[in-house]
Amino acid sequence: MIGINEAIDLATARITSSKQSEKVPLPSALGRILFSDISAIKNLPCFDNSALDGYAYAAEFKDEELKIVEPTIFAGDEKFYEIKAGQAQKIMTGAPMPAGADSVARLEDVNAQGGTLKIPASVHAHDGFRKKGEEVRAGELLLRRGEILNPAKIMLLAAQGIYEVDIYARPKIALFSSGNELKEPWQSASEREIYNANSSGIAALLQKYGFKNEYLGILKDDFSEVCEALDAATRKFDVLITSGGASAGEADFMQSAMSELGFLQVFDHIDIKPGRPSKCFAKDGKFVFAMAGNPMAAFVLTRAVILPILFKLSGASEAFSAEAAIYAKLASDLKLKSGRVNLTVGAYEGGVFTPMPSPSGRIRPLAAASHFFLADPECDKVRAGEIVKIYEI
Amino acid sequence: MIGINEAIDLATARITSSKQSEKVPLPSALGRILFSDISAIKNLPCFDNSALDGYAYAAEFKDEELKIVEPTIFAGDEKFYEIKAGQAQKIMTGAPMPAGADSVARLEDVNAQGGTLKIPASVHAHDGFRKKGEEVRAGELLLRRGEILNPAKIMLLAAQGIYEVDIYARPKIALFSSGNELKEPWQSASEREIYNANSSGIAALLQKYGFKNEYLGILKDDFSEVCEALDAATRKFDVLITSGGASAGEADFMQSAMSELGFLQVFDHIDIKPGRPSKCFAKDGKFVFAMAGNPMAAFVLTRAVILPILFKLSGASEAFSAEAAIYAKLASDLKLKSGRVNLTVGAYEGGVFTPMPSPSGRIRPLAAASHFFLADPECDKVRAGEIVKIYEI
Repeated sequence: MIGINEAIDLATARITSSKQSEKVPLPSALGRILFSDISAIKNLPCFDNSALDGYAYAAEFKDEELKIVEPTIFAGDEKFYEIKAGQAQKIMTGAPMPAGADSVARLEDVNAQGGTLKIPASVHAHDGFRKKGEEVRAGELLLRRGEILNPAKIMLLAAQGIYEVDIYARPKIALFSSGNELKEPWQSASEREIYNANSSGIAALLQKYGFKNEYLGILKDDFSEVCEALDAATRKFDVLITSGGASAGEADFMQSAMSELGFLQVFDHIDIKPGRPSKCFAKDGKFVFAMAGNPMAAFVLTRAVILPILFKLSGASEAFSAEAAIYAKLASDLKLKSGRVNLTVGAYEGGVFTPMPSPSGRIRPLAAASHFFLADPECDKVRAGEIVKIYEI
Repeated sequence: MIGINEAIDLATARITSSKQSEKVPLPSALGRILFSDISAIKNLPCFDNSALDGYAYAAEFKDEELKIVEPTIFAGDEKFYEIKAGQAQKIMTGAPMPAGADSVARLEDVNAQGGTLKIPASVHAHDGFRKKGEEVRAGELLLRRGEILNPAKIMLLAAQGIYEVDIYARPKIALFSSGNELKEPWQSASEREIYNANSSGIAALLQKYGFKNEYLGILKDDFSEVCEALDAATRKFDVLITSGGASAGEADFMQSAMSELGFLQVFDHIDIKPGRPSKCFAKDGKFVFAMAGNPMAAFVLTRAVILPILFKLSGASEAFSAEAAIYAKLASDLKLKSGRVNLTVGAYEGGVFTPMPSPSGRIRPLAAASHFFLADPECDKVRAGEIVKIYEI
């Protein structure tokens, strides 16, 4: 039996380095992963400019009465200006510094009257302007292959005039559900029939973290039908996620089906509750995840195990944001069955984590949960007030 | 001068209750906001069923040798089964309980041989099955108007067979940039020309939190042109966000333009660094935000001020996830200029917040930042090791 991290490592080891890239414009680049390093092509700032609305002057004449020369320099002004000894020139934020000036005094800080001004002692010389290249030097490495493009990185690329970026192609992901007893949520179920909730939940969870996916329907409990459907899907998609039909019961034949299709087992069962019967198969860099049928189990294992694998499969060299653990005070005692990792969902607010322990078949506690906590296998109790490490769902 | 919360409250008070709703299917519902309360239409579970793979029996005969009756009941079986006194029936997870049974013993826990079995004393009676309606009772309130649909809520709706949901229509958001000096990132700028980074950054930030937006171009520093462009845009959109041209400099006429168009000022300047010159105007429930031109300022104020307002404008009764403060240890001393709220961005990892103080015009520190910290106006220093409250960017 293996833990979550081993499961992720085993699958990651099966990733065949994908060389597929695509080009997208910045408005489509959010959350996508860089395929190439990006070097700066433009200095930032690209010319010496004023950091404030004020007067440009030369530090060496700071203590003298300065003569104001016209005109005011505005941002976007393309003329060339120069001040001479003892002169100052009014300048707006972002406007190019006149030659001869090396300091800017804030408008509110100086007393300008009758065409002259005095710089008070409280104003520092050499302040108030931004030097060409002080933030970014043309040619230096800006972003690396494998970085996930967040909004500020997109802004940084825009500032460079880089509008098209080379990113990893997305893995093609498809979902199945499994079980004769299921009706789709858009169908009508009798009192005895169960709606397929897992596919909608897993699809939305993948979507939340930026992964598009396609839903392919319910696999009926018929061996040759299952083999046929999986075979066709693995030809078209890189990753399949199914839920249900993966427990130890007699109706389980996902394992036989995958072996029939030549897939090797990457892991079988994870030492965790809920979600123990979670399986992964791989072949030629393609993955099939067979999750437990219980909604809670299928959902949380998708978050805790499949999503980190999908990020690596997508070329990410860094963890995604929800992988950053946060620390919270436990709101109430939590009793656990030791001997395995226990995953507990709960609501986080104001530094406090309120656990919502519940049988693995339930969905409702999940809907109110924001984070999950993983307790070590030897842990059978965590007391209210203890600090626990939790992760965003 | 006002703080962030007052700025948000002032704008929120101007929201005219929007009555516009639309219907979307579940795959399009992630992050959208419920327009109506939703009551359960189906019991969960919808019938008594086994929680495990095992044997169904009646508690009153638990200590006797039980006779196993055929067949095994599988999930999805629609026949009616009944066990009699002293009988047990094999049953799979999710399968309907046979009448007469009130307990299920796990397969691995019993010794079944020659058509009979004994339930060991260690197995609890009345366990192992899920009672109809124990999670959700048909008719009870499930989700409320104003809730933000997260993946688990979508799963909960799917489990009810609710595939179409009534949600608030999105506010129509448009972005402008402003300044004669700007070139678009898809154009070619000379060494003296600056690329418009703000619009791409703000657009991606809104997109991250689920807000679609349209980019309308650069407002040139010409009063009648600006008035005309804003007038046309406010007729078509609910929210406009501009950046640049909003400082106290001579080139600022956003304020005059908005007053020309009959908009009232909601707030002018926020007592914060960076981002002090942030303005908001409103008219008939429509909003115009005029942010500072500095990229850092425009970006962080969009996150800290505009986004919370947009969620409220969208009908949300709850805060969005990034509004949940987390607590982190400060990695290094932070010196601040007291007298105003100081916003500092930084990187959070493993419980530690590494601040990245930097002049407000920079973008690069933002690209590596994940969170921001707001220091009280009276605070001029925070020491390494102190616990600070931070928010996701």
